[in-house]
Amino acid sequence: MRLLNERNIEDIALGAAVLGTGGGGDPYIGMLMARQAIRDYGAVELYTLDELDDDDLIVPTAMMGAPTVMVEKMPNGDDIINAFKSVGKYIGKPIRATMSIEAGGLNSVVPIYVAARLRIPLVDCDGMGRAFPELQMVTHTIAGIGATPMAMSDERGNTVLMETISNHWTERFARSVTVDMGAMAMIALYAATVGQLKTAAVLGTISQAERIGQTIRSARVTEEDPVNTVREAVGGYLIFKGKIADVQRRTEGGFARGDAFITGIDDYAGQQLQMSFQNENLIASIDGAPVVTVPDLIATLDIDTGEPITTEGLRYGFRVAIIAMPCAPQWRTPVGIALVGPRYFGYDMDYVPVEERCG
Amino acid sequence: MRLLNERNIEDIALGAAVLGTGGGGDPYIGMLMARQAIRDYGAVELYTLDELDDDDLIVPTAMMGAPTVMVEKMPNGDDIINAFKSVGKYIGKPIRATMSIEAGGLNSVVPIYVAARLRIPLVDCDGMGRAFPELQMVTHTIAGIGATPMAMSDERGNTVLMETISNHWTERFARSVTVDMGAMAMIALYAATVGQLKTAAVLGTISQAERIGQTIRSARVTEEDPVNTVREAVGGYLIFKGKIADVQRRTEGGFARGDAFITGIDDYAGQQLQMSFQNENLIASIDGAPVVTVPDLIATLDIDTGEPITTEGLRYGFRVAIIAMPCAPQWRTPVGIALVGPRYFGYDMDYVPVEERCG
Repeated sequence: MRLLNERNIEDIALGAAVLGTGGGGDPYIGMLMARQAIRDYGAVELYTLDELDDDDLIVPTAMMGAPTVMVEKMPNGDDIINAFKSVGKYIGKPIRATMSIEAGGLNSVVPIYVAARLRIPLVDCDGMGRAFPELQMVTHTIAGIGATPMAMSDERGNTVLMETISNHWTERFARSVTVDMGAMAMIALYAATVGQLKTAAVLGTISQAERIGQTIRSARVTEEDPVNTVREAVGGYLIFKGKIADVQRRTEGGFARGDAFITGIDDYAGQQLQMSFQNENLIASIDGAPVVTVPDLIATLDIDTGEPITTEGLRYGFRVAIIAMPCAPQWRTPVGIALVGPRYFGYDMDYVPVEERCG
Repeated sequence: MRLLNERNIEDIALGAAVLGTGGGGDPYIGMLMARQAIRDYGAVELYTLDELDDDDLIVPTAMMGAPTVMVEKMPNGDDIINAFKSVGKYIGKPIRATMSIEAGGLNSVVPIYVAARLRIPLVDCDGMGRAFPELQMVTHTIAGIGATPMAMSDERGNTVLMETISNHWTERFARSVTVDMGAMAMIALYAATVGQLKTAAVLGTISQAERIGQTIRSARVTEEDPVNTVREAVGGYLIFKGKIADVQRRTEGGFARGDAFITGIDDYAGQQLQMSFQNENLIASIDGAPVVTVPDLIATLDIDTGEPITTEGLRYGFRVAIIAMPCAPQWRTPVGIALVGPRYFGYDMDYVPVEERCG
């Protein structure tokens, strides 16, 4: 166990936004929320799974919806506490801790807010090792853990609880309710024991995010090439440098979908990268040929600072570097590829591990 | 207390379909479901509120959605039991009985099915004295009783529970979930005590429906004018006789909406009646002038048998009589008119009690 202070939270939010591959919410808003909670309620205890009992029950907490909405509509804090407590009340057993369901600027720190306010531990793992747009897309699903009982709460005081026959049905109902709640809802779901999570979760995600965040912060003062230091910290590949020439986006059924077109610079002059996203970056193609696909991670970094840019933050003229990273091994199984491979998202192409194309 | 047998159920389903004013589901399907339950589990006890303790908790049960779907997708019975039990489990107190939330061919007998299968009483009252298309449109709302905790279940085994800040929010979430469940869901909601219901409910609805059903059945053998005997039984007014010339319908967001155009015959030759409906009949206008409006009841009867025709059963060429009946007094209050008056449904006209126009 170690304590997370305000500085740690900033690093986690920033580093998780790299792992968030363009989704998972804005790191600035998430960080503000978690930092205030630590100021109000004290430092948060970060545990590894090994430091807890196998029977301890863990309930992840998160924001669901189109991240674009966050700019106008801040969660008020009570909403996520309502969702978390509703699941606990429904299950009728004590919940030992919370955790992130995904790595992302916001969803890495929403559980920190919950942990601070309720004075419960945060667990150093998540359910993706990155961010994904749909509820069933978690390593819990691969391990056969149900998303329900799931609770969703809005800032007005409404709560919806569900028990479904599959995690795809959870996604279906929850997506509609999210739209009704104003395109954003705070959620608690995927209750599991520590014993289950030892194989079902992606371990160490919070520490990994923190290290990435520290790297970006150090690069601000050491004047190293920030993109290269981030690439090294994540163990990834630089696949492109360029200038954003166009971004086409649409919000559909609670998702932010679109494509960004990036014109190459430096070594990449004369080439064009197309990035297709649905909340998160899904496919990066150079001159029409796919180079990295989901579930491997694709991050867009500011070329000068190494800071991650979310899909909703993509703007004409930004100078960016694109880096790719291997996904957690669970995703590379047949069940994992069926859940989150390119074909699930409607792209007629096979998944090829990033190491094979870029290694 | 008295026992309801199969014959009583048939009468209730038929008579409630008259009170259902075109909505509330098909009486044939509802009757089949309830009759089978009585065959399997025995007769159902019908109680008046006075025969129960004021502290007894009553949870109404119903079908929600577009009745047109019922023809293709029968409820399987477990769904409504799941919804009812989920509310009980959530409240954590024993539920004494169930009741109808609305009068209608299906929703008058769904609670009979629940009562038979769970061997609990049915209460002789409902929350409308008719049928309405939206969840918040019940006399419980006028009395300040919340719709939630509400449970919704489908035939697959999915259940959604909600706690909302208003009955309008319940309607909003539940409507989306109903669409996701396949345009139909089985629901349990509006938990209230007997003490509350003594002023909050419309009393005696089941007995009234049974009397109307008996009247229609007798008319089959006595050769009396069936439309006139029904009109007398409901204390209503004959406003039109004609032949259906056109029906324009559309299913929108879980509702069956449309207009029927009826060409007058006999005393009404040369006139045209337009009936606007949203699941239920809302406005009857003759030659462009409104004659009866919601919340007063408008029923379409087969001219030869006196049997009610639901809005989804309206067909070109049917010879029909239109009768109008005064609504329950709760609806004629300012709060009632705000909830279910013509303006709520988008019609730019004031409510005028049917007695003033037709009396």
